[in-house]
Amino acid sequence: MKKIINQPDQLLDEMLQGLSLAYSDKIERLPDLDVIIRKDLPKQVGLISGGGSGHEPAHAGFVGDGMLTAAVCGQVFTSPTANQVYEAIKAADTGEGVLLIIKNYSGDVMNFEFAMEMAEMDGIQVGKVIVDDDISIEEAGQGRRGVAGTILVHKVLGAAARSGATLEELVTLGEEVVQRTKTIGVALSGATVPEVGHPGFTLEEDELEFGVGIHGEQGYSREAMQSSLDIAKEIIGKMKPAFEWNKGDEYGVLVNGMGSTPLMEQLVFYNDVHHLLTDEELTLSFSKVGEYMTAIDMQGLSLTLIQLTPEITAYLKEDVDVIGW
Amino acid sequence: MKKIINQPDQLLDEMLQGLSLAYSDKIERLPDLDVIIRKDLPKQVGLISGGGSGHEPAHAGFVGDGMLTAAVCGQVFTSPTANQVYEAIKAADTGEGVLLIIKNYSGDVMNFEFAMEMAEMDGIQVGKVIVDDDISIEEAGQGRRGVAGTILVHKVLGAAARSGATLEELVTLGEEVVQRTKTIGVALSGATVPEVGHPGFTLEEDELEFGVGIHGEQGYSREAMQSSLDIAKEIIGKMKPAFEWNKGDEYGVLVNGMGSTPLMEQLVFYNDVHHLLTDEELTLSFSKVGEYMTAIDMQGLSLTLIQLTPEITAYLKEDVDVIGW
Repeated sequence: MKKIINQPDQLLDEMLQGLSLAYSDKIERLPDLDVIIRKDLPKQVGLISGGGSGHEPAHAGFVGDGMLTAAVCGQVFTSPTANQVYEAIKAADTGEGVLLIIKNYSGDVMNFEFAMEMAEMDGIQVGKVIVDDDISIEEAGQGRRGVAGTILVHKVLGAAARSGATLEELVTLGEEVVQRTKTIGVALSGATVPEVGHPGFTLEEDELEFGVGIHGEQGYSREAMQSSLDIAKEIIGKMKPAFEWNKGDEYGVLVNGMGSTPLMEQLVFYNDVHHLLTDEELTLSFSKVGEYMTAIDMQGLSLTLIQLTPEITAYLKEDVDVIGW
Repeated sequence: MKKIINQPDQLLDEMLQGLSLAYSDKIERLPDLDVIIRKDLPKQVGLISGGGSGHEPAHAGFVGDGMLTAAVCGQVFTSPTANQVYEAIKAADTGEGVLLIIKNYSGDVMNFEFAMEMAEMDGIQVGKVIVDDDISIEEAGQGRRGVAGTILVHKVLGAAARSGATLEELVTLGEEVVQRTKTIGVALSGATVPEVGHPGFTLEEDELEFGVGIHGEQGYSREAMQSSLDIAKEIIGKMKPAFEWNKGDEYGVLVNGMGSTPLMEQLVFYNDVHHLLTDEELTLSFSKVGEYMTAIDMQGLSLTLIQLTPEITAYLKEDVDVIGW
């Protein structure tokens, strides 16, 4: 393992310190907690997300005007504790209530829901949206995983919250966005958790794996290495029956790099995706290419499609003031 | 080599196609050319940069309001031709003249200067700023290389051009920014040019190299792998005599990932840099951490410091509408 770090057990602390020092005009770290929060809290529903670290810029890089109020950061690939989430809820509430955006992993769901109960006992109104956009595989007892589509949920709800949506309206809109959002990833390599020191799984030089999760969870098919176009065909071939789209439908596209795949490759892949989707006679009204929800140093990328409505498109396109969008 | 591409010789074309399709509201590709240009051209001095590809988001990702007017994109790690630059100059000129921001590599300088002469024969006013911020090593017959500091030149001059600076004023300001900007990189691995298929150089599992260039040019010292803090100490130890700074001086910091180094590590490194510079009693008024000038899939990062003036700080902080900033 070759990483630019100091002690692996200090990594989370030093990363959050670095982030809050580098962008001290926009964000700050709650004292003695692993929570990054906006410096100014406007009177609106607070939006909180988070989860294990290792997915940077998710989620702390999306804290700011027009997206999240706060992000709760667990150890690498490990859920934050309920207490950390509870402290974030208290800090993010301006009297309008707080919405939790939770990726669908057992640990995250448990800890965020426990924190929700604790905050409700304090009289804070708390809602939740659980994101399970990864259609590649269903984990026994857990359902589908939450992956890069979560960033679109942050963006849409962040814009809606800023424009004055109530907690109840945000829950309804969030559930609609989740229903309309689907993601499939492909890995060319495993990710190395610094405290572990070696990749979570290994792929041979001529192999890739479809459907791998952002923590290196097993995918649905390990195959011989393929061209960008063939990868795009495989993923869109799975998306088509899942969405049951019709000619003329309006979609948004998010190509997300997993950490070690250069933007150059992501753009080549986007080009293939764009042509395949326009061959399907879909209208692409929103697109974005880059690293949003990484898996430490995994080589690979994911494709997220979102079936748009005029409201969702408008919220996706609004300006934001965050580091990672 | 494991890359998400199609044919290596189609990579540049497909990447530019992907970029212009994904962000068609902001930018477009000049027909039959490897030039990305703003969709709307305000009446101001046009700013053009470019060079070999493989450094994404540089330079095409910095085209937009408040930064570049156009970017000329050569093949991977290869200068664009003079003709491509000439066409970009003609397209970017609105009658106020055009400024070329050139990284200091023999091929780039030669082709950009040749294009400048061609455009001047057409009656277009053209100026140039050559960026040579890499203080780690001086190449025989070429001088110092232009690396990540170039992005700060784009940003400062882009803001100044937007606010109405003349070509002459931009040349003067650009030269001042270059003088005030210094960069040193560190590599943990080589970069693989897709058409070559293997890394340009190899580092052992326990080695790093200080001073490596963004095309894998040799650095000044190959050493045993070190902690983030020790890397920061080495680089700042070289910066200190180069800047001859005094307590209280105001600086900006750019930590730039080389392509395969996760943001997590860049933030840990920023944290170390921040503490070392504040120990020197410098005032840090601007900072940014992320991938700006990559070297395909190289593992590593660079540190750029810029000695600020109130004018430069203000221009660095202005809003922009580009993909990569």
